[in-house]
Amino acid sequence: MEEIVRVKRELAYQGKILNIYKDYMALPNGHTAVWDFVEHKGAAAVVPVTREGKILMVRQYRNALERYTLEIPAGALNFAGEPKEVCAARELEEETGFRAGKLEWLINVNTTVAFCNEIIGIYLASDLIPSKQHLDEDEFLDVEEYGLQELLDMIFTGKITDGKTIAALLAYQVKRA
Amino acid sequence: MEEIVRVKRELAYQGKILNIYKDYMALPNGHTAVWDFVEHKGAAAVVPVTREGKILMVRQYRNALERYTLEIPAGALNFAGEPKEVCAARELEEETGFRAGKLEWLINVNTTVAFCNEIIGIYLASDLIPSKQHLDEDEFLDVEEYGLQELLDMIFTGKITDGKTIAALLAYQVKRA
Repeated sequence: MEEIVRVKRELAYQGKILNIYKDYMALPNGHTAVWDFVEHKGAAAVVPVTREGKILMVRQYRNALERYTLEIPAGALNFAGEPKEVCAARELEEETGFRAGKLEWLINVNTTVAFCNEIIGIYLASDLIPSKQHLDEDEFLDVEEYGLQELLDMIFTGKITDGKTIAALLAYQVKRA
Repeated sequence: MEEIVRVKRELAYQGKILNIYKDYMALPNGHTAVWDFVEHKGAAAVVPVTREGKILMVRQYRNALERYTLEIPAGALNFAGEPKEVCAARELEEETGFRAGKLEWLINVNTTVAFCNEIIGIYLASDLIPSKQHLDEDEFLDVEEYGLQELLDMIFTGKITDGKTIAALLAYQVKRA
């Protein structure tokens, strides 16, 4: 494998949840290429399984897609380096109003390796304990309950498209099989 | 579900493979929030299965992660609106040197619904026909062959983290089970 080396990183844009850089890369053919880099502090997500074996999902508006999506509960880390299981437990409680009696690591997902360093730690939450939903001030979402097979059918008919949700639900299905 | 409406979109940065916008969103609580939006033209990816049931993977350097990753073959659309199966067939041949005798749609993945509109159409390629690898001038990657179970083990031990690759391999496993 030939070596690729970054020779410079330039800040191009500072956003609310991300920063954009231009990476100047020295390639094995002698070229210097400029590649985009989106910096993200990371996130956590949860597959919450109820005592009846149902899965809690959230429906929310996504400006990037200009529509509502059905996703597993998730949220960005409070700060870079926050333990992902702490974030996962917090987001589960904030978004669904349940605490996890048991929280197990399932998979890690880099969402977009081509240009962004975002990594999502995905956990399986069970033994759910009723608590209280407390959304952020500017957060609006509905919690809905589904059977796993129903969600798998929605993946294979293109109705669920969120990458972390697809990876998480399929990982849960493969692990339990 | 309360309504959320975009009142303005401002271009903030033009990159090589993406553009960044600030979206001004009118929320149900009367606030106007500014959310980042990353515009991407879309992509396609392929799970290439050989006649022996092995899977062709590519290993390449990713500046966003500052390391090499193991992924399924994939690439961006040549233009917004290019049919994804055309892109999938092209990227398979360019990156691995095989053409697909058979190409079936598997799933669609929105990589990062929180801030980006990228969607990847993922296909299953079989009846592979030897052709010729022809990488882009500034593209460097190695092709490697793995058994499916070996790849699943790499997902569940955190060695494979690319989201589209995890979703695609697990989808293939669930569909064939």
